[in-house]
Amino acid sequence: MLTSFGESHGKAVGGVLDGFPANLEIDPSFIQSELDRRRPGVEFYASSRKEEDKIEILSGIYNGRSTGAPIAFLVYNHDHRPDDYDHLTDVYRPSHADFTWQQKYGIRDPRGGGRSSARETLVRVAAGAFARILLKTRNIEVNARVTRIGEFFVGEYRTEEYRTTECRTVDHGGKPKRASGLDDPLLLDYLEQLKSAGDTTGGVIACSITGVPAGLGEPVFDKLQADLAKAMLGINAVKGFEYGSGFGAAAMKGSEHNDPFVKEGGVIKTSSNHSGGIQGGISNGGEIYFNVAFKPVSTLMMDQATVNAAGDAVTLQGRGRHDVCVVPRAVVIVEAMAALVMADHLLR
Amino acid sequence: MLTSFGESHGKAVGGVLDGFPANLEIDPSFIQSELDRRRPGVEFYASSRKEEDKIEILSGIYNGRSTGAPIAFLVYNHDHRPDDYDHLTDVYRPSHADFTWQQKYGIRDPRGGGRSSARETLVRVAAGAFARILLKTRNIEVNARVTRIGEFFVGEYRTEEYRTTECRTVDHGGKPKRASGLDDPLLLDYLEQLKSAGDTTGGVIACSITGVPAGLGEPVFDKLQADLAKAMLGINAVKGFEYGSGFGAAAMKGSEHNDPFVKEGGVIKTSSNHSGGIQGGISNGGEIYFNVAFKPVSTLMMDQATVNAAGDAVTLQGRGRHDVCVVPRAVVIVEAMAALVMADHLLR
Amino acid sequence: MLTSFGESHGKAVGGVLDGFPANLEIDPSFIQSELDRRRPGVEFYASSRKEEDKIEILSGIYNGRSTGAPIAFLVYNHDHRPDDYDHLTDVYRPSHADFTWQQKYGIRDPRGGGRSSARETLVRVAAGAFARILLKTRNIEVNARVTRIGEFFVGEYRTEEYRTTECRTVDHGGKPKRASGLDDPLLLDYLEQLKSAGDTTGGVIACSITGVPAGLGEPVFDKLQADLAKAMLGINAVKGFEYGSGFGAAAMKGSEHNDPFVKEGGVIKTSSNHSGGIQGGISNGGEIYFNVAFKPVSTLMMDQATVNAAGDAVTLQGRGRHDVCVVPRAVVIVEAMAALVMADHLLR
Amino acid sequence: MLTSFGESHGKAVGGVLDGFPANLEIDPSFIQSELDRRRPGVEFYASSRKEEDKIEILSGIYNGRSTGAPIAFLVYNHDHRPDDYDHLTDVYRPSHADFTWQQKYGIRDPRGGGRSSARETLVRVAAGAFARILLKTRNIEVNARVTRIGEFFVGEYRTEEYRTTECRTVDHGGKPKRASGLDDPLLLDYLEQLKSAGDTTGGVIACSITGVPAGLGEPVFDKLQADLAKAMLGINAVKGFEYGSGFGAAAMKGSEHNDPFVKEGGVIKTSSNHSGGIQGGISNGGEIYFNVAFKPVSTLMMDQATVNAAGDAVTLQGRGRHDVCVVPRAVVIVEAMAALVMADHLLR
Repeated sequence: MLTSFGESHGKAVGGVLDGFPANLEIDPSFIQSELDRRRPGVEFYASSRKEEDKIEILSGIYNGRSTGAPIAFLVYNHDHRPDDYDHLTDVYRPSHADFTWQQKYGIRDPRGGGRSSARETLVRVAAGAFARILLKTRNIEVNARVTRIGEFFVGEYRTEEYRTTECRTVDHGGKPKRASGLDDPLLLDYLEQLKSAGDTTGGVIACSITGVPAGLGEPVFDKLQADLAKAMLGINAVKGFEYGSGFGAAAMKGSEHNDPFVKEGGVIKTSSNHSGGIQGGISNGGEIYFNVAFKPVSTLMMDQATVNAAGDAVTLQGRGRHDVCVVPRAVVIVEAMAALVMADHLLR
Repeated sequence: MLTSFGESHGKAVGGVLDGFPANLEIDPSFIQSELDRRRPGVEFYASSRKEEDKIEILSGIYNGRSTGAPIAFLVYNHDHRPDDYDHLTDVYRPSHADFTWQQKYGIRDPRGGGRSSARETLVRVAAGAFARILLKTRNIEVNARVTRIGEFFVGEYRTEEYRTTECRTVDHGGKPKRASGLDDPLLLDYLEQLKSAGDTTGGVIACSITGVPAGLGEPVFDKLQADLAKAMLGINAVKGFEYGSGFGAAAMKGSEHNDPFVKEGGVIKTSSNHSGGIQGGISNGGEIYFNVAFKPVSTLMMDQATVNAAGDAVTLQGRGRHDVCVVPRAVVIVEAMAALVMADHLLR
Repeated sequence: MLTSFGESHGKAVGGVLDGFPANLEIDPSFIQSELDRRRPGVEFYASSRKEEDKIEILSGIYNGRSTGAPIAFLVYNHDHRPDDYDHLTDVYRPSHADFTWQQKYGIRDPRGGGRSSARETLVRVAAGAFARILLKTRNIEVNARVTRIGEFFVGEYRTEEYRTTECRTVDHGGKPKRASGLDDPLLLDYLEQLKSAGDTTGGVIACSITGVPAGLGEPVFDKLQADLAKAMLGINAVKGFEYGSGFGAAAMKGSEHNDPFVKEGGVIKTSSNHSGGIQGGISNGGEIYFNVAFKPVSTLMMDQATVNAAGDAVTLQGRGRHDVCVVPRAVVIVEAMAALVMADHLLR
Repeated sequence: MLTSFGESHGKAVGGVLDGFPANLEIDPSFIQSELDRRRPGVEFYASSRKEEDKIEILSGIYNGRSTGAPIAFLVYNHDHRPDDYDHLTDVYRPSHADFTWQQKYGIRDPRGGGRSSARETLVRVAAGAFARILLKTRNIEVNARVTRIGEFFVGEYRTEEYRTTECRTVDHGGKPKRASGLDDPLLLDYLEQLKSAGDTTGGVIACSITGVPAGLGEPVFDKLQADLAKAMLGINAVKGFEYGSGFGAAAMKGSEHNDPFVKEGGVIKTSSNHSGGIQGGISNGGEIYFNVAFKPVSTLMMDQATVNAAGDAVTLQGRGRHDVCVVPRAVVIVEAMAALVMADHLLR
């Protein structure tokens, strides 16, 4: 449904959304507002790059409604600063795509990571905003939030249903720390220390999709969870995906894990939801929920050892400013990709 | 590349592999031997269903070599026992696909789960065997093994590189237990208890792909890890996928996580591998590795409460015999799906 | 929607139809009867190959209804006669696919043309029969008939609407001859002469699709006529496709060609139909009609000069028996492919 | 490979070319020059619309070379004149897509035909120019020319090989007339008369592809000729496609039609080419050639009877100016689409 194009410091990034239904009211300010959500106010989460990111819709809308024709949109890049990247033309930044792109294509646009820059996700957010307009007409809602940043669990503990996934004590020794929210002083202090050290951290985002009718998803190859997994692993920096009981299921018994069917208010539903709202690849009408793990930002503000194209050892200097943690900015991306998957299955 | 067909208790299950390269030597006994691996010797892991599962290759091979034409193959089902399933025609088994399939299609083949049966994975194993023949010509190897069954870690501890993913203490309270292998008496005793109780359990499989050249995978939408994730989440009972540092990455610092580039023996490589062999969606020449989480088998040998199609509460009786844990049988499926993804990217 | 497999003299030919709607009544005898239509009674049109061509449906049907799961079917080949083709292993038959297949794949199954044999169309006919079952539920009908064989126009002259396409005097000098039907003695005599000479001839099939609602087809890349053209040119031996006014349109004026809109019986329709029922790639509710040109059968019963794989001049001996003209047998193939295209667009 | 977007009088038309190989030199002036070819100098062939049609390439090129990333490009529309089309909002122009689009989508952009305008072909020409750059690196050339306009055959008579297709006396009674070229006074006089009457005419374009290696095309569903046919029938106003012997094949004998293989200069080739360079769906190394029929322009400069959306009879007034014959302008479109098909198969 979505084709995207554009490099971080090329002329523009944009996309074409094909197959979007006709006759839906499109409010361009909603699309723009979703893009704006990529820049939360907390400084540790914001890159220093200053782009207005004003979206321009080029086609597919007439008199405020979609026409069924492809919707093309783009955002021109104003903050080129091409000379900022001269020093990178020949250097492979650790855990970036410089080396692999060069191996695959024998050429790459080194300016700001070129095509492999996270700036490309802007296109997905815009496309996801269109998808959400469609989903809203069916009362389907997609909501994500940060549940972890580095050593901290973030936010309210969830209900019993989510216990398994929420409390995963992934490997940082000692007890997990808890932050009431993204603005918890304990968390901000932690991030301040990382920033001072020129370092970064990762996190986890949980996403919930409600209002989904039973019957979406294909039973074998395009299972709903498989398409969600692909969409999430397609986001830069994502390292893992689990839905429903997730990795916790490995340690459970079948008698604990099975979700009994009951009839309530004339509707057949499950009384627990380890299934994560999907059974046999097809939605069952319950809430769909999943977790997405992000690695730490690879661009550090400290010096790093690496090699150049010739294989010579060089030092990559940490300079400029960058996100300490992208996870809060990624919430809207997770929502957008989830919305695109749901829209895609809704339209089959 | 693969189309599959067939229901658990229909005439046959099979598949068509289109786009397989010409002129490769095909040893049908290798394909058969991969199918045979779905039935390990330990009783707790084996279903009582007795099928010879003899594969019949119908096309695409001439004089022992692939011709470039579609390779069709099938396995006839001999163990129909259709009357065994009469009691299920109208009942929604908990955490199976009965309900969702009925909601989506308004009809379903209830015999043994019909199309949603894990018997369909037989097709993927056969197709994966073909893919492995192709990969072998490029010295690419795919190896998976069980790393967890229920409360137990299984097998040798891995090297430093895998520490993060290996030691994930997913949510079962208390300390994880350790089994030296699938035949460790402690583990077998645990499974015996589950069996006596008519219960089941889940597990985790780790998979490693070696010999992959740099440059496989697409940089944006068909990232290599995205396609692997989709393939894994497309396997029945899979609840999660993580590659490289996986969920553990959430708690790491960038300075820990970044993989420095070095030149060794004239080759540029990374000195650590949190990236899991993939950067920016493209293989970097290092080992690709990932974990896959399986939920417990949903078919229990104990009675369960559920509803029928009318929504009336009914008791689903536990009867017959079934796997206590499918994870050991699923190793070959994980390998097969991984091989199919790699073959697909190799052929692009 | 359709994947096919199988070689002329391999074990079987068959196909998998994926995405076929659930809950349609399937009468296997209808599928079989469509296959049987590939063998009309007139001897000049029938190959000497004796195959029962009994179709076996393997999946996707339960209790006489489609389930939404892939429908796999196959026909086993009984008439192998592999030694009949030993003399062809190394020879490139003129205007067959032997040479090109060898160039593309470096290997081929020489028995009866292998994968490139027209026997593969059997799969399309079976799949088309399923498509017709679907179309029938929407009152869409597909009917084709032979309008030309060699020097003869065949059958009734059509109404004004078809004049343009019907009377195309394609290049054989002199006046076209007219046959009242496929059993017209004049035509049979003409075919008898060809047969005596070991020669063959081509023809034209006209196809009409009625009952199509307005709105099928995509406006730019998957125009309905584009998909019909692709389907027809995908049939062995087809050399041309034209719809509506076709090639005749080149010589017309816009004022003659334009189809005026009128309202009749409360419905907006066109009062002429040079458009062939499609405007801007989308069906307009009128009759869709098109012509398909077939070349003469390439397998001759006379000797022909050619080369072998080494490039040495050899004589290909005419032997056995073969169709003088396949066009009558191809009517059901044209219908099947048209039905598949319509079903595909109906299901979008 | 190509996604396109844009309406005739929207902000812009453009496209995204995905999968274009890396490291090819891209001369933007060549792309522009192909676009310029859409406007030949002879007045009867040119619309009055004045657009500079300056292409802007947005991505995928770095330092003058393709990078393997998607190439996006667009042309902004300057000549909006939206009020010119107010009178069309509610009227169905004969043989345009107004009615069908409205039936399919329930909404349409009426300005200049919106998405269904031939202006969209500009995108294909630009994309085709990129494809030609790729083909040139393999010495593949695509050349088309007008062979018919209305009652006239145009240009030199071809060699024996093309006789069949060239001399098709498609249905206009009387003898075909002959023009030496597009500027033959006889032809211009004929067009002048059409123009005075506010009328239009159709034509035929012949296309030749040389330098194609043997082995391109797929043997069953994506036969090379099938993809060429689909591409051609996807061009606005195209009514027919034939390759090699085309419709003329219907009247030929197999002994005339078969192309004998010979060895010349160490290369196996055919001594005639009724096959049109394709056998069994795969290129054989010979010249690929085909004919494409265009209907007369549907926009007339005379009044026409039609209905509006309510079904009321209305008169559509002929006004403004428009092409008498688009066929000369369509030569570059035919070439572009053919180049895209060849590039697509080359890259498989």
